[in-house]
Amino acid sequence: MHTLEQLYSNSLALLTDLYQLTMAYAYWKSGTARKEAVFHLSFRENPYHGGFAVGCGLGHVVGVLSRFGFESSDLDYLSRLQGNDGEPLFEDAFLHYLRDCRFACDVDAIPEGTVVFPHEPLVRVRGPILQGQILETVLLNIICFQTLIATKAARVCQSARGEPVLEFGLRRAQGFDGALAASRAAYVGGCAGTSNALAGKLFDIPVKGTHAHSWVLSFDDEMEAFETYADAMPNNCLLLVDTFDSLNGVRRAVEIGRRLRERGHEMVGVRLDSGDLAFLSIEARQILDGAGFPDAVIIGSNDLDEHVIASLKEEGARINVWGVGTKLATGYDQPALGGVYKLSCVRSEGNEWINKVKLSEQAIKVSTPGILQARRFRQGDRFVADAIYDETLGLADGCTIVDPMNMTRRKHVSGGTGFEDLLVPVFRAGEPVYEVPSVHAARERAQTQLAGFHNSIKRRVNPHEYPVGLEARLHEMKTRLVLQARGVNGAG
Amino acid sequence: MHTLEQLYSNSLALLTDLYQLTMAYAYWKSGTARKEAVFHLSFRENPYHGGFAVGCGLGHVVGVLSRFGFESSDLDYLSRLQGNDGEPLFEDAFLHYLRDCRFACDVDAIPEGTVVFPHEPLVRVRGPILQGQILETVLLNIICFQTLIATKAARVCQSARGEPVLEFGLRRAQGFDGALAASRAAYVGGCAGTSNALAGKLFDIPVKGTHAHSWVLSFDDEMEAFETYADAMPNNCLLLVDTFDSLNGVRRAVEIGRRLRERGHEMVGVRLDSGDLAFLSIEARQILDGAGFPDAVIIGSNDLDEHVIASLKEEGARINVWGVGTKLATGYDQPALGGVYKLSCVRSEGNEWINKVKLSEQAIKVSTPGILQARRFRQGDRFVADAIYDETLGLADGCTIVDPMNMTRRKHVSGGTGFEDLLVPVFRAGEPVYEVPSVHAARERAQTQLAGFHNSIKRRVNPHEYPVGLEARLHEMKTRLVLQARGVNGAG
Repeated sequence: MHTLEQLYSNSLALLTDLYQLTMAYAYWKSGTARKEAVFHLSFRENPYHGGFAVGCGLGHVVGVLSRFGFESSDLDYLSRLQGNDGEPLFEDAFLHYLRDCRFACDVDAIPEGTVVFPHEPLVRVRGPILQGQILETVLLNIICFQTLIATKAARVCQSARGEPVLEFGLRRAQGFDGALAASRAAYVGGCAGTSNALAGKLFDIPVKGTHAHSWVLSFDDEMEAFETYADAMPNNCLLLVDTFDSLNGVRRAVEIGRRLRERGHEMVGVRLDSGDLAFLSIEARQILDGAGFPDAVIIGSNDLDEHVIASLKEEGARINVWGVGTKLATGYDQPALGGVYKLSCVRSEGNEWINKVKLSEQAIKVSTPGILQARRFRQGDRFVADAIYDETLGLADGCTIVDPMNMTRRKHVSGGTGFEDLLVPVFRAGEPVYEVPSVHAARERAQTQLAGFHNSIKRRVNPHEYPVGLEARLHEMKTRLVLQARGVNGAG
Repeated sequence: MHTLEQLYSNSLALLTDLYQLTMAYAYWKSGTARKEAVFHLSFRENPYHGGFAVGCGLGHVVGVLSRFGFESSDLDYLSRLQGNDGEPLFEDAFLHYLRDCRFACDVDAIPEGTVVFPHEPLVRVRGPILQGQILETVLLNIICFQTLIATKAARVCQSARGEPVLEFGLRRAQGFDGALAASRAAYVGGCAGTSNALAGKLFDIPVKGTHAHSWVLSFDDEMEAFETYADAMPNNCLLLVDTFDSLNGVRRAVEIGRRLRERGHEMVGVRLDSGDLAFLSIEARQILDGAGFPDAVIIGSNDLDEHVIASLKEEGARINVWGVGTKLATGYDQPALGGVYKLSCVRSEGNEWINKVKLSEQAIKVSTPGILQARRFRQGDRFVADAIYDETLGLADGCTIVDPMNMTRRKHVSGGTGFEDLLVPVFRAGEPVYEVPSVHAARERAQTQLAGFHNSIKRRVNPHEYPVGLEARLHEMKTRLVLQARGVNGAG
């Protein structure tokens, strides 16, 4: 197996913040390590000022959790850490406990490719508090980034209006895995392929690529470079035409296309990588069409994102395939999704669930208590609202949902023509119970999901807000807990 | 060895853009795979509108190149790729060539922790054109990202004016390696440690951490949570005080500190993670000092970056340790460094070097020809200018440098009181010849280097521009080539 393939199917128990381990130690030391607790992963605002996000990363989560456990070298390392008095930070008995620790949680999560919204639980972990706590960091790392990039890809593809988008971001991505995970998430979000050969191998994503400026420069002139490339790769001949002068390059490509045709091959097309892509693509199209190459594609690249593509489209650019790199693979204008992972209830010694809220001066940072599920309601083939509800309280056929940011905004939703509970079982008592769909199936789900939302929600700028609310009894329970906590603990 | 440790010492030959491989194929097919060529990696603008960058990533580059080669599963994968006619993209004989390919390049590079500027060659690769080409992507991926983060860390540490900065970015970083490489680069750039336990293990970086809000919430009240934590970890007791009300939390921490003292332990301090950190830290300091805890530290965190820290400092914040997460680990306000990797000369069949330039309408995108080295001149203990020169042309004792962005800006520099050629030999004919300094040595070098530059260059906003230029004869050679290329190829 390739090292980078192992990465996604190996234990990453130590890929966590040290404070998860010091808390784990304190739980163990105080005899509460096995206390049952529930945590939820969610985010607070849609990325890129958009109206939606595309959930992604569960595939890797399943790989990592399936092999959860500390390696002996991990424990050796932890045994060497010291407190501020130079004494070991962790007792040996605790490290033995970690060594013998078998993953025992129930995990429920929203499948990859599902359209998701702020406040919704994307992952729910229920089990020994020590384990749920340690998982916080790696779950956030995987889900936040891949969701961020799948969402960016969906936005870019939307601007490309169905024309293929290729992800070219590897060289400027944030590390190897910043690139690999991005290539995967971009595909789930709607991209047609990637330039990243290893991502193609590991994740079965289509790979695309032709040549760079350096190819042309390594020859005495452009024509010689094109001829040599066409001779070597007659069945994958797409020529980068802007090394010296783009339109001259297109004319030379036409020459090459004619020679290929004589040998029974068809030139794939040309790539424009600089200059005014609107003007140049219109001119290039005329040259190609006029010379009898109406099927030759024009790939456009150069610092593209959803906004630049939309603007080029407005100006009538004749680009058929969009190569999008840095701005896609890093989610450039918002390179992190503000995901959080909050404790929402713990089981008391008397075996009762005690709901928990984290207070904050900012309403958006107050967490939601309970054991949560999200239900998406449909009318015909359109999604109309999502209700976040507490599984213990249950959900009636019809219900009122309350906007968690503005309790005066309420909406009644009924079963309508159907609904779907978004969280599905992924682990039960530490055992995987979920067949991870292929990236192709996840990509398909993203397409189907996106098609179910009104266009106003998918608008690139100033989108309409899709109704997502707390089911009324959950809202009341949360309000009661917040008031209680402010009363009892706030005044101290 | 840990999977993620292998990552940095394993072949990543396939972690490249497919077009590098199609070009490699075309070089091989046209019989020019072994043509000698020189490539340089550089960037075009300092990140974050700053006046400098801190080079980083060479340690990982050495690991990856030392084991450069295609695995059999890589070649199996490549053998299955198809052209647009359904025929294989690559001939078997080419895949055998890749299989037998041994790394044979000379690599020179600027050591980690060196302060670097736009246009300077950070890495130079000289060898068979096929190999130099394939390496482009992975070199850019490693060097651009780590340099980006080391630079961000240096800027953040500068704002903290010598007070320790801890990197807390793992949870929202871009993938596992987006986090691990960021932790490493942040340390080289000046951070005192990280929360990332695996980065601590793999790279020997100090790790820090205490507890989260969820710890407090899992108990019935804050006092019980604090007591339990202090009992478990008396030698690492730093309490997060803002779960309900920050200043009440500080008062409770004082209680805990007193009890710890009775048992012979000293509380480390408190962490503030929300609210007005200037106001709260000043109040917290008074409470702590007044209660006899003048040595208890106050850690501040919550969406910090160099600008927020500078502003808090201006307001007299009494924070001793700065926890910086997302904005550091992702280089939030500029999440990618615009690095490029350009062919600059090839050896002709007659064994002569032929210099190459890549044209562009934008002066900043015109590449520099030659076999480049960068020399940094000193006057006393201050760096005064860098000259980029062609090793074939050589460099006289004193020289004139020409600003590559504005040829009328010139400066005469002389040997002064010393100089250093920044690129050092790393590989010769594919064999490693460089002892990679530890991250501690690299961090030390960054400190020494930064101290050698005038403060005006390190200013957070609107910095002075440090003089970096092309040595006059190199400038002339470049100008001649550009004019030639525009004449011959531009007019077609």
